Amino acid sequence: MYDYSQWNHIFKLDPNKEISDDELEKICESGTDAILVGGTDDVTLDATISLLVRIRRYAVPCILEVSNLEAVTPGYDFYFIPTVLNSNDPKWIIGMHQQAMKEFAHLVHAEELVMEGYCILNEDCKAAKLTSAVTDLSIEDIVAYAEVSEQLLKLPIFYLEYSGTYGSPQVVEEVSTVLNNTKLFYGGGISSAQQAIEMKQFADTIVVGNIIYDNLQEALLTVKAVKEGATK
Amino acid sequence: MYDYSQWNHIFKLDPNKEISDDELEKICESGTDAILVGGTDDVTLDATISLLVRIRRYAVPCILEVSNLEAVTPGYDFYFIPTVLNSNDPKWIIGMHQQAMKEFAHLVHAEELVMEGYCILNEDCKAAKLTSAVTDLSIEDIVAYAEVSEQLLKLPIFYLEYSGTYGSPQVVEEVSTVLNNTKLFYGGGISSAQQAIEMKQFADTIVVGNIIYDNLQEALLTVKAVKEGATK
Repeated sequence: MYDYSQWNHIFKLDPNKEISDDELEKICESGTDAILVGGTDDVTLDATISLLVRIRRYAVPCILEVSNLEAVTPGYDFYFIPTVLNSNDPKWIIGMHQQAMKEFAHLVHAEELVMEGYCILNEDCKAAKLTSAVTDLSIEDIVAYAEVSEQLLKLPIFYLEYSGTYGSPQVVEEVSTVLNNTKLFYGGGISSAQQAIEMKQFADTIVVGNIIYDNLQEALLTVKAVKEGATK
Repeated sequence: MYDYSQWNHIFKLDPNKEISDDELEKICESGTDAILVGGTDDVTLDATISLLVRIRRYAVPCILEVSNLEAVTPGYDFYFIPTVLNSNDPKWIIGMHQQAMKEFAHLVHAEELVMEGYCILNEDCKAAKLTSAVTDLSIEDIVAYAEVSEQLLKLPIFYLEYSGTYGSPQVVEEVSTVLNNTKLFYGGGISSAQQAIEMKQFADTIVVGNIIYDNLQEALLTVKAVKEGATK
């Protein structure tokens, strides 16, 4: 079993976006710690299976981030399950999870299921709108969600999600100060090696997504930048 | 540190109800594994402090079940924090917890905080009304909440709460079959040794409350009944 708590860098692939075999090879053999498959727009089962099969040619760990139940398939190394802590709708905190258990409890191994405490902070992103996330939060509010994740829920991962926009290093830094056991993931808008390094100062793991599709070379540089920082 | 995962029997005292020193002594020296202090009606800080001080004369572990932030005081052995999984209001799932962390994060030790996954099943009880609990659930729904607690949230406790009424042994039995690591607490309407034994067949821990105030002798018999069963 892989140890996701040691991962520094993750590439996030959207099943609904095109990626060529050549590009996928570069991503999978980049030295990244894992490939996370997930998206907000209607992800289909066909799309998650297709991407799984293509990624499986490589030795890199492969995780499905579950955003809708229809797209769940066996075969991934882990299933990361977001609970949107700042959602205004119980469905995104616990409701879908309960429905999922009714359907899938006997198909999965508990040790493959990893709960992520999500805090979605870009009010304009699709994920925020979909989950009715309350994004008008003070730093104290955000830090308190991190403390709930570590001290009460004892979640393995707290995920600061700025989906589509580059977030506040100050927020990531403040949150990092209250987490000891729960790992801090940062995702959103990283589009250069410099930004990767900036957020990696505070986050345990950075997630690099859209830039893969916009500028593959720059995306690949984020791996090297983070890995060199991590070994310093 | 006490090991709450080994407890078979708990007495639950309501800070808003009168109990004489003599009665309290009988409860605390009954052989019960712990005293849980908690109530739904406006619990005050004065009431939780007063009861803590009185219980502390005895060697029994003493836990505060936190239902409102105003009534939290240091000095208890544990703080059991309910998250009402079948609430329709995010406030009772995670919202109050986040507010609590803003106020108390630096006053408590994380190891004293124990999250309870609550499923409130008596639609007429105050707790259900207060928390907007969705009580119209099938057995499959309830079992799925237990599976979420064990497999996703990996909570230490799943609490079937029939507050004020005696629940369904069949539900408790079904839920018990899906829990291995998460401990199953049953509370509600236990008013005889026989009922204590019936629920203890399936629950790891039974919580005995109201009968303390209605029929102390019968309440005390539930301890003996459960302990004899537990050592068989």
